[in-house]
Amino acid sequence: MEIDYIFILDIIGVIAFAVSGVLTAIRKRMDPFGIFIVAFVTALGGGTLRDILIEAPVIWMQNTLYIYVIIATVIFAVIFRNKLIYINKPLIFFDTIGLSIFTLIGLEKALRAGFSPEICIATGTMTACFGGVIRDILANKIPIIFHKEIYATACILGGIVYFALQVFAVPSIVISIITFLVIFSLRTLAVYFDLKLPSINFRK
Amino acid sequence: MEIDYIFILDIIGVIAFAVSGVLTAIRKRMDPFGIFIVAFVTALGGGTLRDILIEAPVIWMQNTLYIYVIIATVIFAVIFRNKLIYINKPLIFFDTIGLSIFTLIGLEKALRAGFSPEICIATGTMTACFGGVIRDILANKIPIIFHKEIYATACILGGIVYFALQVFAVPSIVISIITFLVIFSLRTLAVYFDLKLPSINFRK
Amino acid sequence: MEIDYIFILDIIGVIAFAVSGVLTAIRKRMDPFGIFIVAFVTALGGGTLRDILIEAPVIWMQNTLYIYVIIATVIFAVIFRNKLIYINKPLIFFDTIGLSIFTLIGLEKALRAGFSPEICIATGTMTACFGGVIRDILANKIPIIFHKEIYATACILGGIVYFALQVFAVPSIVISIITFLVIFSLRTLAVYFDLKLPSINFRK
Repeated sequence: MEIDYIFILDIIGVIAFAVSGVLTAIRKRMDPFGIFIVAFVTALGGGTLRDILIEAPVIWMQNTLYIYVIIATVIFAVIFRNKLIYINKPLIFFDTIGLSIFTLIGLEKALRAGFSPEICIATGTMTACFGGVIRDILANKIPIIFHKEIYATACILGGIVYFALQVFAVPSIVISIITFLVIFSLRTLAVYFDLKLPSINFRK
Repeated sequence: MEIDYIFILDIIGVIAFAVSGVLTAIRKRMDPFGIFIVAFVTALGGGTLRDILIEAPVIWMQNTLYIYVIIATVIFAVIFRNKLIYINKPLIFFDTIGLSIFTLIGLEKALRAGFSPEICIATGTMTACFGGVIRDILANKIPIIFHKEIYATACILGGIVYFALQVFAVPSIVISIITFLVIFSLRTLAVYFDLKLPSINFRK
Repeated sequence: MEIDYIFILDIIGVIAFAVSGVLTAIRKRMDPFGIFIVAFVTALGGGTLRDILIEAPVIWMQNTLYIYVIIATVIFAVIFRNKLIYINKPLIFFDTIGLSIFTLIGLEKALRAGFSPEICIATGTMTACFGGVIRDILANKIPIIFHKEIYATACILGGIVYFALQVFAVPSIVISIITFLVIFSLRTLAVYFDLKLPSINFRK
C-alpha cells in the first residue's frame, strides 16, 4: 500500500518531467527520437541518481512500465503540443510538479533506507534538481536551477517542513501533501511574482 | 568463450572511442595529458554508466588492460594523427564504430543480467551515447547527439533488430553482426547522405 | 587511527573545495541557497564518484558531519568573502588544496579496496578533478581542467610518485605528505609561472 503510493507518485513525476523534456526538445527543433531521449533522461535522471546514492537498484531498470509511460507521454505531448502552450508557462508548470514530487520521493526513499534527516533533504534536493539540470544541459540551455528564481531553495525548505512535521503526530499522508504544496507553492509564487533571495556580492 | 567475445568487442570499442577522443582533444590544442584524459573518459564513460546501471563492477576497475590499451591508443593516434586525417571524416568513423559496439555490448550485458528487452535497449543506447556526449562536453562542443543527423536513433533501431532476431532461431553471433551492421550503416548513411528525421515544431 | 587520518584529510578537502565553490558562486551573483548548492556539489561530487567507482557506500550519505561542515564553511566563507580576496588567487589556492587532498584520498581508498596501482591513479585523478569540473559547469564557466595550465597532469604525476615511493620502505605518512606536496607544488608552480605542456597539433 505504502509502496503503491510512492510508485504512483513516481509515475506522475516521471510524466511531468517527460512533458517538460518534450517541450524543451521541441523548442530546439529535435527529431522524434531526440525528443524521446531528452524526455527519457529528464524523467529518469533524478531517480537514477537517487537510487545510486541510496544504493537501491535503479528503479526504471526493474520495471518496464517506466519506459512505456515515457513513450506514451512523448506521443501524447507531441500530438497536443499546441494545446500545451495555452497553459501559462507550461514548461515551468510541469517542471515544478516534477520537482515537488521528486523531492518528496527522495525524502521518503532515503528516510526508509535509514538515512538521517539532513542527508534525506540533501538527497531529495539533488535528486529533484538533477533531471532538470540534465535536460537543460542536453538542450544547451543555462540550467534553470541557476536562474535567480527560487528553485533548489524550495526543495530544501520543503524538506525542512517534512521533518518538522514528523516531530508532531501528523499522519504521513498529510505530511506528504503539505510538503508537496510547500515546494510547489514556493516555486510557483517565486516564478509569478519574480521573487528572489538577495544575491551576495563582494564589497566594491 | 562467450566472455572473451564480449571482452574483445569491448576493447575494440574502447580503442575506437579513444581515437575519437584524441582527435577531438588535438583539435582543441590540448597538451598530452589533456589528450589522454579526454580519450580515457570518452572510451570508458559509457562502460562505467552501463556497469553502474546493471549493478556490475565497473569493468575498467577490474582489469588494468583497459588503461594500457588507452595509453597505447593515445600514443599511436598522436603519432599517426596526420595519417588519420586522410580517412574521410575520421572522427565520425571512429565514433560510429564505438557507438555500434557499445550499443551491442550494452544490449548483451543487460540481457545476461536478466533485464527485459526494452530496458536492454535503453541501457545500450544510453551507454553508447554517453562516451561521445562527455567527450563533446569536455571539449566544449555541442554534443554530436544533438546534431540533427540520426545518432541515438540508430542505437534504438539496432536494439529493436537485435531483439526481433532473437524471436527466430538465429545464432547469437549472427545477431550480433547484423545488429552492428544495422547501427553502423544507419549512422554512416545518415552522415554521408545527410539524412535526418523531420523535426517537430510548434504550430505557427 | 588510519581511518581517522583519512577522515580528517577528507574533511579538509571538503572545506577547501566548498570555499572554492562559494567563491565561484558569489562571482556568479547567486543567492545564499545557490551558493550552498554549488559548494555542496563541488565538495562532495568527487568523493561521490570515487565511492561509486570503488563500490563503497557514498561517504557523505553515512555521516551527517559532512553536511554541517559544508554549512559552516559556506557561512564562514560568505562572511569573510572580502578577506578571502586578499589571498592571491584565492580560488586557485583552495581548488589546489582540494585537488591534492582528493587525489591522495582517492589513491588510498582505491588501494585499500584492492585495486592495482594504475587503476588507483586513474581513480584518484578522476575523483580529484570531478568536483572542480562540476563546479565550473554549474557556474557556466569553461572547466578549469581544460585551461592549458597543468591540472590533471599534477594528479597523475602525484600518483606515480605515490606508488614509486611504495617500492621503498618509506613510512606511509611520509608518502602521503610527499604526494600532497608534489601535486600542490606542481599545480601552484604551473599557475604562478604559467607553465604549460606543449600542445599537439595537426601538421599544417
